[in-house]
Amino acid sequence: MEKERETLRVWKERVEQELDGVVAFWMKHSRDQEHGGFFTCLGRSGKVYDKLKYVWLQARQVWMYCRLYRNFQRFHQSEILESAKAGGEFLLRYARVAPPGKKCAFVLTQDGRPVKVQRTIFSECFYTMAMNELWRVTGEVHYQREAVEMMDQIVHWVQKDPSGLGRPQLSGTPAAEPLAVPMMLLNLVEQLGEADEELAGKYEELGDWCTQRILQHVQRDGQVVLENVSEDGKELSGCLGRHQNPGHALEAGWFLLCHARRKGDPKLRAHIIDKFLLLPFHSGWDPEHGGLFYFQDADDLCPAQLEWDMKLWWPHSEAMIAFLMGYSDSGDPALLHLFYQVAEYTFRQFRDPEYGEWFGYLNREGKVALTIKGGPFKGCFHVPRCLAMCEEMLDALLSRLP
Amino acid sequence: MEKERETLRVWKERVEQELDGVVAFWMKHSRDQEHGGFFTCLGRSGKVYDKLKYVWLQARQVWMYCRLYRNFQRFHQSEILESAKAGGEFLLRYARVAPPGKKCAFVLTQDGRPVKVQRTIFSECFYTMAMNELWRVTGEVHYQREAVEMMDQIVHWVQKDPSGLGRPQLSGTPAAEPLAVPMMLLNLVEQLGEADEELAGKYEELGDWCTQRILQHVQRDGQVVLENVSEDGKELSGCLGRHQNPGHALEAGWFLLCHARRKGDPKLRAHIIDKFLLLPFHSGWDPEHGGLFYFQDADDLCPAQLEWDMKLWWPHSEAMIAFLMGYSDSGDPALLHLFYQVAEYTFRQFRDPEYGEWFGYLNREGKVALTIKGGPFKGCFHVPRCLAMCEEMLDALLSRLP
Repeated sequence: MEKERETLRVWKERVEQELDGVVAFWMKHSRDQEHGGFFTCLGRSGKVYDKLKYVWLQARQVWMYCRLYRNFQRFHQSEILESAKAGGEFLLRYARVAPPGKKCAFVLTQDGRPVKVQRTIFSECFYTMAMNELWRVTGEVHYQREAVEMMDQIVHWVQKDPSGLGRPQLSGTPAAEPLAVPMMLLNLVEQLGEADEELAGKYEELGDWCTQRILQHVQRDGQVVLENVSEDGKELSGCLGRHQNPGHALEAGWFLLCHARRKGDPKLRAHIIDKFLLLPFHSGWDPEHGGLFYFQDADDLCPAQLEWDMKLWWPHSEAMIAFLMGYSDSGDPALLHLFYQVAEYTFRQFRDPEYGEWFGYLNREGKVALTIKGGPFKGCFHVPRCLAMCEEMLDALLSRLP
Repeated sequence: MEKERETLRVWKERVEQELDGVVAFWMKHSRDQEHGGFFTCLGRSGKVYDKLKYVWLQARQVWMYCRLYRNFQRFHQSEILESAKAGGEFLLRYARVAPPGKKCAFVLTQDGRPVKVQRTIFSECFYTMAMNELWRVTGEVHYQREAVEMMDQIVHWVQKDPSGLGRPQLSGTPAAEPLAVPMMLLNLVEQLGEADEELAGKYEELGDWCTQRILQHVQRDGQVVLENVSEDGKELSGCLGRHQNPGHALEAGWFLLCHARRKGDPKLRAHIIDKFLLLPFHSGWDPEHGGLFYFQDADDLCPAQLEWDMKLWWPHSEAMIAFLMGYSDSGDPALLHLFYQVAEYTFRQFRDPEYGEWFGYLNREGKVALTIKGGPFKGCFHVPRCLAMCEEMLDALLSRLP
């Protein structure tokens, strides 16, 4: 018991210190004082190497700053709030391509002109998360109105009519459901329903629907989680059907754990731990060099993505959250040991004690392949979300110990 | 002289043998007897791991088979011609998304239904190459009509009105010219103009225009070749502007050398060798592990593409062609030595003596990262084109020696 307490305490301290450094890095380097919003293309030392503004990352940073401001005494700083609000205003003004239409751009110029639009729902999902958090920290209702209106639009695209996304209708395109879609929607249900009985009620059925759709990605008699399945839950042919993304499955795992906790459903929890935590970890962990592969093929064929064997920061952040949450909810010590295993690899390989923040992209052997700290897909999100959530969970575990 | 002859002779033999093996690999594994066209997603031993048909690769394989049939006695086989024609028929029937519209799909199902469409000109460019070669080997004029009509459509998209490509007009998108566009067009001018005075005349001005546009990619006082520049030949801001692709510059180099040869312009030739052969080689060759980097940043920052430091088969194939052509045209022995340097690395690292064809994707250190022999972007094209052209050039060099 004393030893367990001590290990938990050491990790809590490490995680807490690391979070301080990571938040300081983004606060120092990423704010665009001129136009609002954030630079996320930051080199190793934090220097801006490109001024494009990726909407996913703008919105995620707003969300992250608000969460930190709201849940952590030491981050309850007006500077953090102001920066989040400036990011929010930038999004309100520029994210939508053709207001009052809801479709958001994928990337904007520094001053907010659209450069590229993706025909997916993800810019809009992160926009919704950002607006809901801004409402929670400021109490200003126009943020919440934005969030709920966007959520309704997303649900319409997913469940009723996707034509507004602009995808062409082609006779050979399989009706595939990427895991990301029900995952993100479930995450939004959690986000909007937090301490909000009205919205929790409004979206309860949607949450169940998302869960059922996510569970359909467990295939082959429960032996694999597939990234893409047909809408009625069948395996698709070819590479698309065999594609696996262990980090994504683990992230879905903790989204599902939150749902199971809310439902008070221990049977569902056990199923999730089995299929979305243990299965992707055991198939995805590199026995030779450690770390989680980025992509795999369910038949163990060579994936056709060039980066398949690289070790990326975010699957490791998500795995840390998933295992610590799994342990917190189930008490199974095997999950705590997996948390330690992933956290040790992650802290050893991804941290940059010299300049702060984490490297994002290692080669299979664990060598840093890209020295950037931020880019088109890496911003102020997975690392601080992982550290903040782990700090909270470690705190709770320590206070639970006799 | 005896030593030079001997080295050339050894390489000619190596290249010739290798071409035999590569052609045998594709003839054996890639033909779809059921629907026509080719499987290109082939594993290490040639096994089909996905049945999707990528239009670039379908068309390139048709082109390659015709070229081999036309220019090499030992490949003048009815089996090769029949396979090319079956590929051509597949393209005629299925490549266009909405005939009589000219826009082609990027990828089709095995039986020819469109899966994805790219908003670029490249499917159409390779379609044109395939149709022109089919006409050359069969004499059937409907192929040539297809080629010329498609060429006119491509020129219209590039020079007059790109709206038919379906790209959205967004106020923040820079009017960037990718090097690929004038390069591919120049290559088509060469293809259609071969031994055809009428078409050579028709496209002469276009060839000059392409050359001028390609030369605009030499920037910073002649110190770098940039992949994207503005339409009036200025450097663009950010990562897009600094992006470099050494293999692409080298490929453009030999396209330009063909043009300079046709023009009889030795001053242009010297400029090309300087800027499109030596510059990208010296900046792009990895001093530590050998091989050409895939991507670089003109300011030597870390590229944001995950695969930037990988060694791909095609930049090496293109470099072999470029240096041997540079030497053939200029007689500069430094270029012959660079050919040997690249060819030695390439044959050592990419060949697979066990199953034939080349690996496509090595990590920075030269280890095979993907064991596939074909995929969405690798088919029967760069390797056999390189080997066939090098065999012809080595032959010509040997016969020129006293």
